[in-house]
Amino acid sequence: MAEREGVFIHPQAICESPSVGPGTRIWAFAHVLEGARIGSRVNICDHCFVENDVVIGDNVVIKNGVAVWDGVTIEDGAFLGPNVALTNERWPRSGFPKGLARTLIRRGATIGANATIVTGITLGEYCTIGAGSVVTKDVPPYALMYGNPARRKGWVCVCGLKLAFGQKEKTSCSCGREYREGDEAVKLLQ
Amino acid sequence: MAEREGVFIHPQAICESPSVGPGTRIWAFAHVLEGARIGSRVNICDHCFVENDVVIGDNVVIKNGVAVWDGVTIEDGAFLGPNVALTNERWPRSGFPKGLARTLIRRGATIGANATIVTGITLGEYCTIGAGSVVTKDVPPYALMYGNPARRKGWVCVCGLKLAFGQKEKTSCSCGREYREGDEAVKLLQ
Amino acid sequence: MAEREGVFIHPQAICESPSVGPGTRIWAFAHVLEGARIGSRVNICDHCFVENDVVIGDNVVIKNGVAVWDGVTIEDGAFLGPNVALTNERWPRSGFPKGLARTLIRRGATIGANATIVTGITLGEYCTIGAGSVVTKDVPPYALMYGNPARRKGWVCVCGLKLAFGQKEKTSCSCGREYREGDEAVKLLQ
Repeated sequence: MAEREGVFIHPQAICESPSVGPGTRIWAFAHVLEGARIGSRVNICDHCFVENDVVIGDNVVIKNGVAVWDGVTIEDGAFLGPNVALTNERWPRSGFPKGLARTLIRRGATIGANATIVTGITLGEYCTIGAGSVVTKDVPPYALMYGNPARRKGWVCVCGLKLAFGQKEKTSCSCGREYREGDEAVKLLQ
Repeated sequence: MAEREGVFIHPQAICESPSVGPGTRIWAFAHVLEGARIGSRVNICDHCFVENDVVIGDNVVIKNGVAVWDGVTIEDGAFLGPNVALTNERWPRSGFPKGLARTLIRRGATIGANATIVTGITLGEYCTIGAGSVVTKDVPPYALMYGNPARRKGWVCVCGLKLAFGQKEKTSCSCGREYREGDEAVKLLQ
Repeated sequence: MAEREGVFIHPQAICESPSVGPGTRIWAFAHVLEGARIGSRVNICDHCFVENDVVIGDNVVIKNGVAVWDGVTIEDGAFLGPNVALTNERWPRSGFPKGLARTLIRRGATIGANATIVTGITLGEYCTIGAGSVVTKDVPPYALMYGNPARRKGWVCVCGLKLAFGQKEKTSCSCGREYREGDEAVKLLQ
């Protein structure tokens, strides 16, 4: 295991990948396999596992107990809560491999604690998946989804707060960003 | 890491806290941070994580794979099943910190396996949360709640068994304890 | 810890059981207790835990973060997805032991990621439990069940694919196996 400049690897972690960006921290009992490519300032918490065919962008946070399987891509600034379950087989059966499906977690998305993401799905930019949800279909950008199965219950801002459109077509978040709501989609205006 | 008298720390565990009571056991691949205060005869099972701003009472059981975050208080005799997910951010987003919320798990409460507790919530004394539930609001003492979202489905005894009021106002558990049911609450009579 | 012939034990795993069959692999930060009996060609992934009163057959796959408790039997060829939660107490409460219940996972069954199995249940041969489900009652052979609580939504083949009976009594899977549907059950014809 080579020393990687500017990377913190806990003495009880195992990081077999040479491709980890500066400022990234890998905590105790986490295990990163050799082929994983991990960006800068990523936080991989205790008891996480990262397989080989995985790309993780910059500033991603992965809380404890998350396994990131072959076929998963996590873009910049995504947040995965504790015990989130990702998958890469649609109809798993021991002894009957059927090929892996891919999961794409777009920039700035949040996945709440203990949520489950069925494979083959894209989670749109800056969406938020509520804690304990089961996501079975694609998630639009900025969507707030929760439940089992997860359904869209509203919209969220880039900053993560819930947007309140009420009866209006436009709204602004307390952080200053403005949005227009359209047909099952919202648009960031400024 | 100092030896703490009467504390069992598995050789593959990491316990950085000096504040652990006698009779407490911390099992393999568990990790307890320096600021955590942990009572006596607590059982922290494999693959658990305990952050700094955490207080855990006496006789608490925390099964495998549970992360106890800053802001969580667990009173005496609580039971957390395997893979329970606690949280401390209401609207998490990488790069947009909003301050932490607190979770209070009162004396004798039980949280079933794989349940998810949204932050900012109090779980009342001797409540029971069913396995796989998602708790989104405060839980009354003695309440039995389950589902996603969790709703109250009955009442439970101090000993953990379900109470059967039927049409009556009073009932007794097979353990001998007696209860009166009121308006969305029960009272232990003796 | 004795060397067991033909068994791979990761240097960061703990395997205290002498009863592990050839071709079995036990990965990093997994912990197998002394009494567990584990078959051949089993894959026990990172961060799993296997207690003592456990029997695991051949060709079983247990993905990351699964704890297999006393009282659980897993037959040949079963698949347990990541973060699956098994249990062995019906009404757990710290300080109020009530005896353990048993769970039987029959041959070829699949349990999807993050599913929760309430104790005392049998999962039938070649059933499939959807990701994130909460199983609260016995599951028939070949049943596809999901949701919270999990309900039967269809049938699956030995190979794991969903069966399409439509209005017909008989159907064949793309793998060639044929089935007849009866009264809340299906039968493999060939």
